[in-house]
Amino acid sequence: LDYQHVQVPFEITLWIMLASLAKIGFHLYNKLPSVVPESCLLIFVGLIMGGIIYGLNDKSPPVMDSDIFFLYLLPPIVLDAGYFMPSRPFFENIGTILLYAVVGTIWNVFGIGFSLYGICQVRAFHLQDVSLLHNLLFSSLIAAVDPVAVLAVFEEIHVNEKLHILVFGESLLNDAVTVVLYKLFRSFCEMPVIKTVDVFAGVGKFFVVGIGGVLVGLTFGMTAAFTTRFTKDIRVIEPLFVFLYSYLSYLTAEMFHLSGIVAIIACAMGMKRYVEANISLKSHTTVKYFMKMWSSVSDTLIFIFLGVSTIGENHEWNWPYICFTVIFCLIWRALGVLVLTFFVNRFHVNTVTSKDQFIIAYGGLRGAICFSLVFLLPDFHRKKLFIAATTVVILFTVFVQGMTIRPLVDLLHVKRKRESAPTVGEQIHIRFLDHLLAGIEDISGHWGQYYWKDKLEYFNSKYLQKILLREYDQPKSSIVLLYEKLERKHAIELAEAGQLGHAPSHPSLLSDRTVITDKKSEDTLNPDILENIQEILARNLYRIRRTGPAYSRHTLPGETEPVEQAKEILILQRRSL
Amino acid sequence: LDYQHVQVPFEITLWIMLASLAKIGFHLYNKLPSVVPESCLLIFVGLIMGGIIYGLNDKSPPVMDSDIFFLYLLPPIVLDAGYFMPSRPFFENIGTILLYAVVGTIWNVFGIGFSLYGICQVRAFHLQDVSLLHNLLFSSLIAAVDPVAVLAVFEEIHVNEKLHILVFGESLLNDAVTVVLYKLFRSFCEMPVIKTVDVFAGVGKFFVVGIGGVLVGLTFGMTAAFTTRFTKDIRVIEPLFVFLYSYLSYLTAEMFHLSGIVAIIACAMGMKRYVEANISLKSHTTVKYFMKMWSSVSDTLIFIFLGVSTIGENHEWNWPYICFTVIFCLIWRALGVLVLTFFVNRFHVNTVTSKDQFIIAYGGLRGAICFSLVFLLPDFHRKKLFIAATTVVILFTVFVQGMTIRPLVDLLHVKRKRESAPTVGEQIHIRFLDHLLAGIEDISGHWGQYYWKDKLEYFNSKYLQKILLREYDQPKSSIVLLYEKLERKHAIELAEAGQLGHAPSHPSLLSDRTVITDKKSEDTLNPDILENIQEILARNLYRIRRTGPAYSRHTLPGETEPVEQAKEILILQRRSL
Repeated sequence: LDYQHVQVPFEITLWIMLASLAKIGFHLYNKLPSVVPESCLLIFVGLIMGGIIYGLNDKSPPVMDSDIFFLYLLPPIVLDAGYFMPSRPFFENIGTILLYAVVGTIWNVFGIGFSLYGICQVRAFHLQDVSLLHNLLFSSLIAAVDPVAVLAVFEEIHVNEKLHILVFGESLLNDAVTVVLYKLFRSFCEMPVIKTVDVFAGVGKFFVVGIGGVLVGLTFGMTAAFTTRFTKDIRVIEPLFVFLYSYLSYLTAEMFHLSGIVAIIACAMGMKRYVEANISLKSHTTVKYFMKMWSSVSDTLIFIFLGVSTIGENHEWNWPYICFTVIFCLIWRALGVLVLTFFVNRFHVNTVTSKDQFIIAYGGLRGAICFSLVFLLPDFHRKKLFIAATTVVILFTVFVQGMTIRPLVDLLHVKRKRESAPTVGEQIHIRFLDHLLAGIEDISGHWGQYYWKDKLEYFNSKYLQKILLREYDQPKSSIVLLYEKLERKHAIELAEAGQLGHAPSHPSLLSDRTVITDKKSEDTLNPDILENIQEILARNLYRIRRTGPAYSRHTLPGETEPVEQAKEILILQRRSL
Repeated sequence: LDYQHVQVPFEITLWIMLASLAKIGFHLYNKLPSVVPESCLLIFVGLIMGGIIYGLNDKSPPVMDSDIFFLYLLPPIVLDAGYFMPSRPFFENIGTILLYAVVGTIWNVFGIGFSLYGICQVRAFHLQDVSLLHNLLFSSLIAAVDPVAVLAVFEEIHVNEKLHILVFGESLLNDAVTVVLYKLFRSFCEMPVIKTVDVFAGVGKFFVVGIGGVLVGLTFGMTAAFTTRFTKDIRVIEPLFVFLYSYLSYLTAEMFHLSGIVAIIACAMGMKRYVEANISLKSHTTVKYFMKMWSSVSDTLIFIFLGVSTIGENHEWNWPYICFTVIFCLIWRALGVLVLTFFVNRFHVNTVTSKDQFIIAYGGLRGAICFSLVFLLPDFHRKKLFIAATTVVILFTVFVQGMTIRPLVDLLHVKRKRESAPTVGEQIHIRFLDHLLAGIEDISGHWGQYYWKDKLEYFNSKYLQKILLREYDQPKSSIVLLYEKLERKHAIELAEAGQLGHAPSHPSLLSDRTVITDKKSEDTLNPDILENIQEILARNLYRIRRTGPAYSRHTLPGETEPVEQAKEILILQRRSL
């Protein structure tokens, strides 16, 4: 037995297998997933696994390695999220999303940080050694909403598209803010004196990290699209480029301390339409299904590892600090959403309703990103307290909020997602209105979203498509593509129901045959065959001529008898001779 | 810049990217791949890369790590080979393949080993310190034909199916022999005295390693098939199980010192038909395309690494030893094929022709497996000589034989693969003949391949399918599946040509509507609506009754006037009342 040799891949495969089998297990009982979110069940499995490991080895089970999380588990999920991002609602609400993601996260960080510092001043709690800076560092990692947790819960409750994109978009884009604040406070912790310049440099970094991430992502996305122009002869490696380039964009961004999540989303959203047009249909199916599969497995592994890592002796228990962390997280998020939405609603016709506000505030789930960040903290004597607080906040949000959000959505009658895809008619009308509004904005000199969308579309069809698409002279509109897709689906359904008419194939067969016989006759000119052909042709011609008018209202079929037919054919033949 | 943090995944991604881009590059010039096999081009790219690294760093470039090769690069290729193995020709020729793989490889090992030992006795060559055992150890790794190299070359020359499966099957199954002989001689090298018992134990190991591999593979394959029975509700992770279980079978076999290649092939061939029936069509497309993509990338990486590893200072150059290795490899393989085929042809009706024999002997390419094994040799003072000889043999077979085999196949008019798939008619006839021959064998008491095939098929449909398939009560025969596939393809073609008739969908639509209105009328019984419906129904019924005979030869349409129609409707309505 040589276990050492295969240990690494063997254990990785076994973990993935465990995760997949756990997933199958839940779905065998249909009632379970409809009551408890999958993420809770997976954490529960992880807790049991961790307990078993702890019981057997009598030492803490291995915690989730932050490197593994950030380098291998997170990218597939974010790639999946970016690739399947509904771009229309995303760009329509980009202002609101950015406001929540940037201002909201900063609000939360400072709100939670200062409040916790206040709690630390209470003598009875024995927390006076936790400085303001450490509190802010902690709040910078605990404040950000987690995309993995949000996705896992919101995918199951099917709220309306706008609400979903507001929460989910915020959770994705706040990464840039988290990265900056976390690194800023961490470097402040190690500095002896903090100057005003450093604070301003931190503010400047926001823009560098966010916009830099977008630029890196778009660069790789465009390169990916350009590369797939040349894969026509080797379809087999087409899907690879989607994964390689997006992963490279993530790694490159991380390398330069930019936001990897923002980069991979920009890359995926940027390349999607061009790659889709360039690669074959089967390759695209492979890309889509593999991406979904991969992100699903990553997601499962993350939650199981979260559970496993919770067990053990990494925690320092301090009731007041932990309880107040949970309470402040809830309060500051609710306040932030209320205040920000008040401003958002003043400038928008399509307002965010109070029900939606409640769900946005309540859906602020924390997850594995906080957990990985807290383990990356520099060692100091209260690190274990922070780990304990983070664990409790994550478990509280995932279990309590995650399990109650579905009943609450039902109770409040929050607007749900429409189940059916938009019809072709609706799509045409939406596009028509887009053009109309772009025209109105153009005339009135107002540079609104429709104006910019129109300009971008023009730039795209004028320059980008020519460079990035293989067949740029025939850019099919999405409506034509949708029609083709519907036709194909319909055809498959017909074929599966056995109702497919073979009629269209027969004429072509017939014509092929006549062509062949024609050719032969030219070659040989056998008089017998020639006569035969002439007769066949004449009769067929006659029949076609006859059957044509026979269907009209004013002529009667069946009147002319076979004798008459023969006469007419004879007359026709004589004329042609 | 934080390169350290992302180094590992970044460099892996870059290598894969380089490999993929090199592949695209070759295919941009259509003439290049038709003359030079891709494997040669990739090795060439690797040589250039290695030269650049050597020139820049002034030290040998990193050689391909044997662990990386055996644990990560080889399995995808073997899985792909096993999953897409044409099972009919494989099982029809299994006897011949095993003879070539087992007896042929042993013949080559001892032939080459003893001849090289003879060369070592010549004083002028300064090789007297290389013992017989070292020569045998070297010949055990150089004798085996490499599946990766064979696949890369034979996929491009399209020889007939039997010839292809003979060479390719041998290259896959000889792994068991190579593993045993290599490990045997390696342990002999370290033993002070070799007893007769050890030799017999070595012979016994053949069966353990080979049959053990098959059993491990089949166990995991059946488990995989069983698992996919339960994935109906989570289609998204279905493809994963195909990869996970086959990889586990490989790793488990390696762990127990069995043949991993044999295990993964048994696993893939065992699970294929059940998994295909259980998982959805899109999942299956994902499995197929991803497998092809992955094996293609592995293949590319292996050849590039081969090139890179060639450059450097790992070689000890000894002209006679290296030249005689190449010559003996060629001679002993040719002799072995001739002798073995002589025996094979005596017992078979469908003989291996002399042209085929030449291609089998000439197609004995060596590749990355030898290369990885030679680096795994225990350190002794002539290891670098062995590395040099292995490198030369690989480069000679891949470049000289790989590049000349296509012209030779053309020149000798070797029978090519038929381009078209068998028609439904042919398939029915083949199956009919199978049953007939099974019956004849059964009556005559001859336990031939058809008898066993029939028994296996019976066992499969009686027991295995009931356990492993989700819908075991409707096992579709492959002809029905083929028909469905053709129908689906035809339907898609029709849809894409825009010739799809929408007729079949209209009646169902109509009937749906009437059902709805019927239901409504039952619920409300509004007299106005009821009247309206009656009128519509009556008119429609009338029209159907009228239009029916109107198309026949003896009645005339358009005679009855609207007034008369109204009269008839009135009469009908009265009657019904």
